[in-house]
Amino acid sequence: MRFTSEQRLDDGVLERAFTLGEVPGVLWTAGSAPAPLILLGHPGGLRGMYPRLAARARQCAAEGFAAATIELPWAGERPPSAAADQARADLRRALEAGEPVDDGTVDRLVLPLVEQAVPEWRALLDALLPLPEISGPVGYSGGVISIGVRLAVVEPRVRAAVLFAGSFVPRAVFDEARQVTVPLLVLLQWDDEGNDRRMALDLFDALGSAEKTLHANTGGHTGVPAFEGESVNRFFARHLRPDHRGGGR
Amino acid sequence: MRFTSEQRLDDGVLERAFTLGEVPGVLWTAGSAPAPLILLGHPGGLRGMYPRLAARARQCAAEGFAAATIELPWAGERPPSAAADQARADLRRALEAGEPVDDGTVDRLVLPLVEQAVPEWRALLDALLPLPEISGPVGYSGGVISIGVRLAVVEPRVRAAVLFAGSFVPRAVFDEARQVTVPLLVLLQWDDEGNDRRMALDLFDALGSAEKTLHANTGGHTGVPAFEGESVNRFFARHLRPDHRGGGR
Repeated sequence: MRFTSEQRLDDGVLERAFTLGEVPGVLWTAGSAPAPLILLGHPGGLRGMYPRLAARARQCAAEGFAAATIELPWAGERPPSAAADQARADLRRALEAGEPVDDGTVDRLVLPLVEQAVPEWRALLDALLPLPEISGPVGYSGGVISIGVRLAVVEPRVRAAVLFAGSFVPRAVFDEARQVTVPLLVLLQWDDEGNDRRMALDLFDALGSAEKTLHANTGGHTGVPAFEGESVNRFFARHLRPDHRGGGR
Repeated sequence: MRFTSEQRLDDGVLERAFTLGEVPGVLWTAGSAPAPLILLGHPGGLRGMYPRLAARARQCAAEGFAAATIELPWAGERPPSAAADQARADLRRALEAGEPVDDGTVDRLVLPLVEQAVPEWRALLDALLPLPEISGPVGYSGGVISIGVRLAVVEPRVRAAVLFAGSFVPRAVFDEARQVTVPLLVLLQWDDEGNDRRMALDLFDALGSAEKTLHANTGGHTGVPAFEGESVNRFFARHLRPDHRGGGR
């Protein structure tokens, strides 16, 4: 891991850009005491997502967590993938034509992305956890839900996850979902036109965790209400801060 | 309204039993400054429900709200209804036999209850709102969802409602649900065997409010996690305390 730049934000949070191999990312920390870490997922394209990621990171910092993210495969400044671009175009065409989305299209769009991305987020943990300002435990929040599902299954250091049900999910990922055991908060935008609501509810049902909560709100894909930020904070406080008091278990 | 007894709870909350006509109820207040009022719904039987109602009322008081409840028609010490008892027995028989629940059974169980109960809860507001320790606005929380739906439609003093999706809902109530406009938080227990989950999700979809949130948790009918109490508190703080700060809107 190579830090490439840093800036101090106006609330005192230290924001550091880095590269991990060829993967660009950002780390946000507040203070020097070891803090639990929240991995911030996103749909790809760090430049465009930066304002929302920085806002989420600052909320994490205000709650005493460090936060980090990396660019997704084939997104942003990373070399593109013609196959992924084609699959995305095919998905859009089907949605715009009001046609059902083909399982094959979903597989082509999502499975290679998960295959490539999950080891990268695990490598991120390998690089960050030794830092003095980072401690376990680790939470994962948002982004492409299939990445979050597989990461929750294979990465024991991830102890809780907030999953955003806003993308199509391959059948194979449903099977993986049954293997998830960590506590989950699933966010669903009820009127998300780029999503299959029935699929999202079925995925919630399939997730194997004994403790899982679904929060569905009215509104479209990017319309997650501001008050859900508090729900996410309290969820991570319950699960990543064993000494957390308030709200019960 | 005639107060019949009072006791001071150990956290300073004043608990007063009353009768409103022939309907028994309980009022909980903390302090003398006018407080917004939360109506506490329940499935019937104040004696058995008392521990849970008192616990909810004390949470309300800790957040600066008064709380009140009344017995449901034909429940507890109120004269029973043979028709309601028969409908409930028919529902149980169908559930135990694993048979689908007949629309007619649901109508017979729920519609007369809603017809009788809603005017009683409105009369409760008429009696309580003039008291110096009670102010508007008013929230409704829990109990039989069809009562909450109709009350939210017909009673303009109810400004926000937490609805517990744990009972069968007549088709007619779905139509009423589309007329609800106040902000809503709907709680659903995902593994509630005495409930129809698909019906609960359809009801959430039918509710007309622009701002509505569904929180679904694993567990059975009485297994609402303790942390949902905080969600309810924050919801009512947002909507009944216009000066509420924190959590955003």
